[in-house]
Amino acid sequence: MAQNVSQKLIGSHLVDGVMNPGAPITLRIDQTLTQDATGTLVMLTLEAMELDHVKTEVSVQYVDHNLLQIDNLNADDHLFLESACRRFGIWYSRPGNGISHVVHMERFGRPGKSLLGSDSHTPAAGSLSMLAIGAGGLDVALAMAGEPYPTAMPRIFGVELKGALPDWVSAKDVILEMLRRHGVSGGVGKIIEYYGPGLDCLSAMDRHVIANMGAELGATTTVFPSDEETKKFLEARGRGRDWCAIAADPGCEYDDHDEIDLSKLEPLIAQPSSPGNVVAVKDIEGEDIYQAYIGSSANPGWRDFAVAAEIVRGKSIPAHVSFDVNPTSRQGLEILVADGHLNDLLVAGARIHQTGCNGCIGMGQAPAIGKNSLRTTPRNFPGRSGTEEDAVFLCSPETAAASALTGKITDPRSLSMSYPRLREAESIAMTSSLIASPLSFEEARRVTLVKGPNIRSLPTLDPLPDSLDLPILLKMGDNVSTDEIMPAGAKVLPYRSNIEKIATFSFERIDETYVERTRTVPGHAVIAGRNYGQGSSREHAAVGPRSLGLRLVLAKSFARIHRQNLINYGVLPLVFVEPKDYDSLEKDDVLAVRDLRRILEKGDEVVALESKGATKGVILARHGLTPKQIEIILAGGVTNLRRNASKLPPTEGAGTQRIIEHDALIVH
Amino acid sequence: MAQNVSQKLIGSHLVDGVMNPGAPITLRIDQTLTQDATGTLVMLTLEAMELDHVKTEVSVQYVDHNLLQIDNLNADDHLFLESACRRFGIWYSRPGNGISHVVHMERFGRPGKSLLGSDSHTPAAGSLSMLAIGAGGLDVALAMAGEPYPTAMPRIFGVELKGALPDWVSAKDVILEMLRRHGVSGGVGKIIEYYGPGLDCLSAMDRHVIANMGAELGATTTVFPSDEETKKFLEARGRGRDWCAIAADPGCEYDDHDEIDLSKLEPLIAQPSSPGNVVAVKDIEGEDIYQAYIGSSANPGWRDFAVAAEIVRGKSIPAHVSFDVNPTSRQGLEILVADGHLNDLLVAGARIHQTGCNGCIGMGQAPAIGKNSLRTTPRNFPGRSGTEEDAVFLCSPETAAASALTGKITDPRSLSMSYPRLREAESIAMTSSLIASPLSFEEARRVTLVKGPNIRSLPTLDPLPDSLDLPILLKMGDNVSTDEIMPAGAKVLPYRSNIEKIATFSFERIDETYVERTRTVPGHAVIAGRNYGQGSSREHAAVGPRSLGLRLVLAKSFARIHRQNLINYGVLPLVFVEPKDYDSLEKDDVLAVRDLRRILEKGDEVVALESKGATKGVILARHGLTPKQIEIILAGGVTNLRRNASKLPPTEGAGTQRIIEHDALIVH
Repeated sequence: MAQNVSQKLIGSHLVDGVMNPGAPITLRIDQTLTQDATGTLVMLTLEAMELDHVKTEVSVQYVDHNLLQIDNLNADDHLFLESACRRFGIWYSRPGNGISHVVHMERFGRPGKSLLGSDSHTPAAGSLSMLAIGAGGLDVALAMAGEPYPTAMPRIFGVELKGALPDWVSAKDVILEMLRRHGVSGGVGKIIEYYGPGLDCLSAMDRHVIANMGAELGATTTVFPSDEETKKFLEARGRGRDWCAIAADPGCEYDDHDEIDLSKLEPLIAQPSSPGNVVAVKDIEGEDIYQAYIGSSANPGWRDFAVAAEIVRGKSIPAHVSFDVNPTSRQGLEILVADGHLNDLLVAGARIHQTGCNGCIGMGQAPAIGKNSLRTTPRNFPGRSGTEEDAVFLCSPETAAASALTGKITDPRSLSMSYPRLREAESIAMTSSLIASPLSFEEARRVTLVKGPNIRSLPTLDPLPDSLDLPILLKMGDNVSTDEIMPAGAKVLPYRSNIEKIATFSFERIDETYVERTRTVPGHAVIAGRNYGQGSSREHAAVGPRSLGLRLVLAKSFARIHRQNLINYGVLPLVFVEPKDYDSLEKDDVLAVRDLRRILEKGDEVVALESKGATKGVILARHGLTPKQIEIILAGGVTNLRRNASKLPPTEGAGTQRIIEHDALIVH
Repeated sequence: MAQNVSQKLIGSHLVDGVMNPGAPITLRIDQTLTQDATGTLVMLTLEAMELDHVKTEVSVQYVDHNLLQIDNLNADDHLFLESACRRFGIWYSRPGNGISHVVHMERFGRPGKSLLGSDSHTPAAGSLSMLAIGAGGLDVALAMAGEPYPTAMPRIFGVELKGALPDWVSAKDVILEMLRRHGVSGGVGKIIEYYGPGLDCLSAMDRHVIANMGAELGATTTVFPSDEETKKFLEARGRGRDWCAIAADPGCEYDDHDEIDLSKLEPLIAQPSSPGNVVAVKDIEGEDIYQAYIGSSANPGWRDFAVAAEIVRGKSIPAHVSFDVNPTSRQGLEILVADGHLNDLLVAGARIHQTGCNGCIGMGQAPAIGKNSLRTTPRNFPGRSGTEEDAVFLCSPETAAASALTGKITDPRSLSMSYPRLREAESIAMTSSLIASPLSFEEARRVTLVKGPNIRSLPTLDPLPDSLDLPILLKMGDNVSTDEIMPAGAKVLPYRSNIEKIATFSFERIDETYVERTRTVPGHAVIAGRNYGQGSSREHAAVGPRSLGLRLVLAKSFARIHRQNLINYGVLPLVFVEPKDYDSLEKDDVLAVRDLRRILEKGDEVVALESKGATKGVILARHGLTPKQIEIILAGGVTNLRRNASKLPPTEGAGTQRIIEHDALIVH
């Protein structure tokens, strides 16, 4: 049967399942990408799993998010990550080397490979015809340990590109057009696959712009075919051998479809405070701006800086406009230095920042309150810039640079100059001083992790006891969010690598006495209403309370991701068979159960909990766990299970075979 | 009589006093320099004074300290400062243009002129034979308003330089040698004046290194003669017309004296955690380092970056070393880009940061905990880097770059290469996109200040009432510091431009109920033991409590600077005539006085306070105020007095004459 590119990529990585939209599948992962904000917990998880060496073809740890270093915490993290890379056989991309997505594309991107990354913009690698998916840290850690990645088969959304982009319109305007048409949830559950003659005018890096911001459509990922533009990109970097052609078969079909005539596009801009709030630049021309901001994973390429430089060359940015330039890779910066474009930007009045994510994730460059900031970044959610009452617009480098010059929102077509014709170098001298290659298996085993005082190994989690007597320490209502379970923010986030410490903030917003009361009992339960654990996917909301002795959450219903996180850390999530039993239970009642391991092992759906204390009686609760999830709960968490597995003697025909065996550990 | 350079500079600016060491003098100020951390309060003071236009020849506001912008506060400050510069006729050096001291030298430094700056490294301008002194914000505001600067005549400390620097030894080693010999208080009350044949091997920018870190010796300032090197520096920047020769007269004398044979110097390094803790690099060679850090106001010149670039060219910095490069001026960065040195640094693995003060003042680049950081910065006080348990060393760019390469503390003489011979360009194309010139008097009058929600005008301070009944809200012990009166730190400092808000932190560490209690009474007093107000000179510790109604502090003795700050904001500082009266007073007693204005006006030294409440009786207190200080107290603070003065009709022969008249306002 004729296949599209997405189906080919999935088919070649399918470990389990069938490719029907919505059906569970598991995928073999060739490469992983972690960044520093999520990477420390990944590395601590590998340590807890007692992994010796990653099983992937390529795993890379990037340091691009937390570069500000206003105290020792970030610097300590960097040293820890550097040692963890040596310990586990991982590439280490140092602070200053660049944003993960662009550096990965430059150095490791390979058509036809799969990539799992603990960053939501991982799909950028689809620009090189990779199957690149963003996931949580634990998923990525498991992939590094050789486990396939479980997901649901997405719908394939084909987008045919026709015509060619007019002057002053570039790749950013293509993805903004997609957002204008389909909104921020238009891609949910889908892979967006671009094809058609319009691709000829989009370089591999232009495609990166489009694939990166597919995340803003909510898409699982975005893919492009691998063609001559892909080849040109790799060859320029001395990596022609990594190229192979990948194209959709003639007559292939798509689950959903759209088409864009590129020649009809005009400069677009997403207004505050959603990437989906897109209008034509010309419709809001003339509004004053405070900031113009060039560079991010959404516009990372040489041409995105060069075009801005050509626009401002020999001119001067008004005194009240902050013209912030954020290089995206050290390699790219070298080129801009060498070809004079950096000088053009400097002379015009740019502030050149260190290479990295920077203000795109609120690490610096926060705008003045209520003042318009035009950015080539992918997101403008309220407050993401660091300024709570911000006014951030998303646009192309052309629009940002033109607006910087005038101090007002400006359609670049109104500039009195001809559109710069830019040609990227055909050959780039790659230098590698900020990226360290992995050690050999034997060297790696001798490495000791470097842990600053705030970096602590994950707590040891005990297996599920057979018999439980758990006082109920909290009785909560409906829709409790993970923000209430474990707050984020400047007070808490610095302890991301110290579970013992971060745990002390658990449920702080609900009951300040909770943490203290957990110290007085060997284990405990909490009960809640509907939709328990909604909101952010942060895993600390599961492992934090677990480390304080949480064993069981009894609720009317759970939010999907938090339920999985609870399971992953060995907390049993149970649902009331009779929701009215919720009313009969009180704080400090004790829930007791005997023979629990046997009940779970033999596959009983319902657990009978004996309620002691003020309320007496039997509460029936349903677990709804898959056999795989039961295995995890019995082991006390997925790291325990993985550690136990890694201690098994090597079996014959390890490798691929072993990966399939271990699929048994994975939770759909 | 034969004069040295210092005497010539002081003599040509002397408004009042005689040049005997220790005697009070006042000086005419030609130029002022403010940076953003201190500048917002300066601008609010100018506003409170209702100043229309600065009276100096040149006043420049630099934005170099608070560049990180993790929320709106810094960006709001930048916009406020930009508008204040337009309002008051001040040059505005934008974020990204560079560190005040080096930019000032490049663009405004002129031999023979005086400069007052609200930054302790202002003496760097002594490199160009200026009389450059650091001072508090209020002093600088008064200088901008045309007032002469009051100080005590320093001793002149002549240092004769002989011989020439050997290879691998540079200007930083000269000032480290001074610190090794004389320690961090060796310059207190002195101007350090360098002279002699050794000057021939020190460029103007080398002299900047030495003059800048004269602050670490505690010196009032440092001066150099104006000679051919000075001329060369100015001519290269198209400013040859600003040059004039200034030299010491043959046979002149110095109050103190030392000499250094430059040819005998070797690479030196200040160990943690004092600039005075100097040893030879070779004595501590081999210790592991985590960070090498190039660039700051202490080593700001082209050659300081170029020599580092030459050392690392074609080599690679080890993965665990953070090699941080901090450009010091946009102009300088342009040159390093153009001549390839920036590329050398990048390829070797440097992290290039935005142009500004950055990590030197703890704004980023904080080192990992307990790991050695080698920096070309001027200070290594504990925690200044941002990391509380830091280990910061101060050294030359040669030593820092050599150590970056090896990953260990390294004497640069041990490198297997010849010493780079560097020659600065004879002509530099100055570009000015990041500096805005002042508006004309008429244009400036039409400007409205741009104030974000956290920038508030200074509170109105009422004149001293004739009759006071003041409850004592606090009774404190000895040695209360300004940190206890008004804490610094991340929670409080963001409100530096909002007195109303910052005032709510007053005395928080001493009595949390203080602020609330001030709301219940129209005015109040506090009493204290000896040495009240020691520590940091922060003015917020005076204006904060004053805005809450503090009118009188009765203590056993005062720290000098805080006492002056109290006076400047209209708080009457009184000292017990009988220290034992301190014991008889209690919190909530009321101190009353009648006819106070008349008592002060007629010059009585002693004020009789009637104690009501639990204690009854008369407490005698001495004020020790000069007539000038009495004028300030009566007006309710120096801004009131200045505002009243500015409303006087212009008198004949304004200008210099007027400055002398207003000397009456100044407090010695």
